[in-house]
Amino acid sequence: MNTLLSSLSSISQLTDSEQLQKYTADSSGYPPALPSIVLRPANTEEVAACIKACAAAHKNYTIQGGLTGLAGGACPAEGDVVISLERMNKIEEVDTIGGTAIVQAGVVLEQLQQAVLEQGWYFPLDLGARGSCQIGGNVSTNAGGNKVFRYGTTRELVLGLEVVLPDGTVLNMLNRVIKNNTGMDLKHLFIGTEGIYGVVTRVCIRLFPKPEAVHNALVALASFEDVAQLLKEARGSLAELASFEVMWDNYLKAAAIATKRTVPFEGHYPIYVLMEVEGSAYGLQDKFVHFLERQIERGLLQDVIIPQNEEQAKNLWHIRDGVSEIFRTLQYFVAFDIGIPLKDMQTFIDEVNQAITDQYPHAVNLFFGHLGDGNLHILTGKLKQEELEAVDDLVYQLTAKYGGSITAEHGIGRIKKSFLHYSRSQEQIQLMRSIRQLINPDNLLNKGRVVD
Amino acid sequence: MNTLLSSLSSISQLTDSEQLQKYTADSSGYPPALPSIVLRPANTEEVAACIKACAAAHKNYTIQGGLTGLAGGACPAEGDVVISLERMNKIEEVDTIGGTAIVQAGVVLEQLQQAVLEQGWYFPLDLGARGSCQIGGNVSTNAGGNKVFRYGTTRELVLGLEVVLPDGTVLNMLNRVIKNNTGMDLKHLFIGTEGIYGVVTRVCIRLFPKPEAVHNALVALASFEDVAQLLKEARGSLAELASFEVMWDNYLKAAAIATKRTVPFEGHYPIYVLMEVEGSAYGLQDKFVHFLERQIERGLLQDVIIPQNEEQAKNLWHIRDGVSEIFRTLQYFVAFDIGIPLKDMQTFIDEVNQAITDQYPHAVNLFFGHLGDGNLHILTGKLKQEELEAVDDLVYQLTAKYGGSITAEHGIGRIKKSFLHYSRSQEQIQLMRSIRQLINPDNLLNKGRVVD
Ligand SMILES: Cc1cc2nc3c(=O)[nH]c(=O)nc-3n(C[C@H](O)[C@H](O)[C@H](O)COP(=O)(O)OP(=O)(O)OC[C@H]3O[C@@H](n4cnc5c(N)ncnc54)[C@H](O)[C@@H]3O)c2cc1C
Ligand SMILES: Cc1cc2nc3c(=O)[nH]c(=O)nc-3n(C[C@H](O)[C@H](O)[C@H](O)COP(=O)(O)OP(=O)(O)OC[C@H]3O[C@@H](n4cnc5c(N)ncnc54)[C@H](O)[C@@H]3O)c2cc1C
Repeated sequence: MNTLLSSLSSISQLTDSEQLQKYTADSSGYPPALPSIVLRPANTEEVAACIKACAAAHKNYTIQGGLTGLAGGACPAEGDVVISLERMNKIEEVDTIGGTAIVQAGVVLEQLQQAVLEQGWYFPLDLGARGSCQIGGNVSTNAGGNKVFRYGTTRELVLGLEVVLPDGTVLNMLNRVIKNNTGMDLKHLFIGTEGIYGVVTRVCIRLFPKPEAVHNALVALASFEDVAQLLKEARGSLAELASFEVMWDNYLKAAAIATKRTVPFEGHYPIYVLMEVEGSAYGLQDKFVHFLERQIERGLLQDVIIPQNEEQAKNLWHIRDGVSEIFRTLQYFVAFDIGIPLKDMQTFIDEVNQAITDQYPHAVNLFFGHLGDGNLHILTGKLKQEELEAVDDLVYQLTAKYGGSITAEHGIGRIKKSFLHYSRSQEQIQLMRSIRQLINPDNLLNKGRVVD
Repeated sequence: MNTLLSSLSSISQLTDSEQLQKYTADSSGYPPALPSIVLRPANTEEVAACIKACAAAHKNYTIQGGLTGLAGGACPAEGDVVISLERMNKIEEVDTIGGTAIVQAGVVLEQLQQAVLEQGWYFPLDLGARGSCQIGGNVSTNAGGNKVFRYGTTRELVLGLEVVLPDGTVLNMLNRVIKNNTGMDLKHLFIGTEGIYGVVTRVCIRLFPKPEAVHNALVALASFEDVAQLLKEARGSLAELASFEVMWDNYLKAAAIATKRTVPFEGHYPIYVLMEVEGSAYGLQDKFVHFLERQIERGLLQDVIIPQNEEQAKNLWHIRDGVSEIFRTLQYFVAFDIGIPLKDMQTFIDEVNQAITDQYPHAVNLFFGHLGDGNLHILTGKLKQEELEAVDDLVYQLTAKYGGSITAEHGIGRIKKSFLHYSRSQEQIQLMRSIRQLINPDNLLNKGRVVD
């Protein structure tokens, strides 16, 4: 440890146990643990030096971004070295002609959004954690968020990466072009792999022109079948469709109550969709309204609310985003972020409801999600603490039955590692492990996450 | 060889040297060579059996799709075993609710497009080779084509794959959901890697609603700077923008002559863009025309041709696609498919023009490309045969100078292998090689392509 420290004397270090408190846990609820030291490199060379020092000292090290992750991936084990990217927060270059930017991995998402806006461009990745999460963390978790439907996940927004490998090699893959077929696109080794193969140090992102206009509507439907039909119609008619957020009735009610807002509709409907289009102002509102009218005429929509101003629109989004307010009313609960093929969605939900009600009649199940992406959130609450793990297992088993993903957004990290086999075959897990052995053979980097 | 044959007696085989002629070369011009045998498995198990037999007999084997590749990747070495996917042409399942399909790798692209259209869906991958190329070949080369701007390359259109590894393991990654963050997305090992890591046997693709309307315009501009500005404006205003094909003046003239069509504009302009929007009919034409008018008013467009019917539109596309007709007039020539950041495009072109004219004053350079994707095609013709390789090298050197891609579309294969270092660092090449050693250690599969 002393040699480690002295070899890195020029790099910012924290060792005071009070200072270290900030680095003990992420947002997942995974038990906190005190690292022995936090290293805060300011550039790629310093990251490489930190990594080489850990390798030489044979110390486990944990990579930390903004600590907003929900899978325990950024939580250190007791005594780990933590390498925090927080000081690598430079926006190095914005290409205002081609619409790309090169930034250090520790740039906070919201600052990145602002900085490119000031240059006349738009970075469409957006999530509740925007004020703390870092672009490097977004890359490592392949973050999704509210506008995946239109722009894709972080994977589709990243043109190139710079990564430091566990042997200290700097892998410069800062590609800036959209199409590049020169052999394997190696950045995919590092996107969504939660830091088990290397440390992301710089990112080249794609930018988009800032949308001039945004319009919302909350619509009520008679069945999930109608929701799937609406989605198909909307994909065909609204190239500007950015969000398609589905809420089942009991979620909408619970969220309205928890967020202290009135339930938007007077009538009772089984299911609702909050739609958002964003794009050029010319003709967009007219097209959106025309689309909604046509769907009413053909009987697909039972009722529609079009907010008349920004405040009303925000109100609807508050209900959609009322998850943390609901949490408080649901102790103890488990929260799922599952991916299920659209065609099986309602059957899956019915089975989950049935299976949980059979075994845990006291439980409450709330369903909602970014359904445009096949991403379903389930909150199962009012459970006893000792029931949580079995409920997890039950839902993941049903997810496997429908060929779904046990985590569409938040990742495996430490928390879902034992469930990985429900979504990935033994052969796939073995291949991920072999790649880990190839690139991270000592397993000092982010040990215990995803696959070992 | 005899044991190989007998162990595969139930699998379709060709050994007659006349029959084998069809399997000696792809569309790249790479020298043909006669394989010793062609195996034509009909399903995944048969592919695995073929691979295991080759491994046991220690025979090199080459994977062939539709043989339309332009990098020599599907060309066998003399005496190779060829595994052709041509009999794996079943469309196994079209999910008409979620808009996905699972198909065998040997399905010809055009048949796939037709089959999903009949079910009310649209597969937007489209390229000149559609009548012969296979979806497995498209995946392996990460094919682009005319609509990348709107829908992405093949990579973005593929949700999941099934692959047989060189040890015979069947890797089922037939994911059907859009978002799946359960560790590394392993399909990226096989997309665009030209068959060096495994054989693609089945593909799960994303489908889109069929666009109701398509509109085109050919516009004339004063400079490449204006083209970049137009692209930014169009990205902001036209969510339906599907193609943005740039042609410099000398390409347009040469293509009009070669395709026996009249040059569209009377005036002389330095540069042209063929734009296409596709989407819902409602308001689209009005929006497109309004957009073009606004760009004329602000002086960005010098002239505009809006085709009045389908035939006129086809005429414009014929000129854009007149490459093979131009080829005949250019012997000997080299054709490039380069990726360059937009901001450097015109400087790059000027340097290429200058460097080639300095050394080869008799040469002709024609420039055009899917510029919306940063993808530039160059045809350099009227060269002497012995000059071809040096011209290749010269252009790739300049590409490297601007951090570009030496192949945005067609891949490395056998033909560009020695130039790979111009776009990928030694560290990257080493990592691709290490992965090859991990997955394909005997290097019997597609030996001599991309990296060895
Ligand atoms: C309120 C809230 C809302 C959220 N909403 C969404 C949402 O809508 N969609 C969604 O997909 N996710 C969402 N998330 C979870 C999401 O994963 C994170 O918010 C974010 O992407 C993580 O970034 P971070 O910088 O905080 O990473 P951290 O939590 O610090 O780290 C996450 C993982 O990545 C690794 N890592 C971090 N930085 C690097 C690096 N530079 N190199 C290598 N590895 C690294 C860590 O080791 C860890 O395994 C939400 C979280 C919160 C708290
Ligand atoms: C007229 C014409 C126009 C074209 N236009 C475009 C264009 O616009 N954009 C573009 O990107 N490309 C274009 N191409 C090139 C493009 O790469 C191919 O047309 C197509 O994608 C290759 O498919 P294929 O089935 O013919 O593959 P093949 O030529 O048979 O093989 C290509 C490579 O992939 C490997 N391979 C094939 N099938 C499999 C499999 N199932 N598993 C593993 N490896 C496999 C082969 O070994 C080889 O290395 C064009 C080609 C032509 C002839």
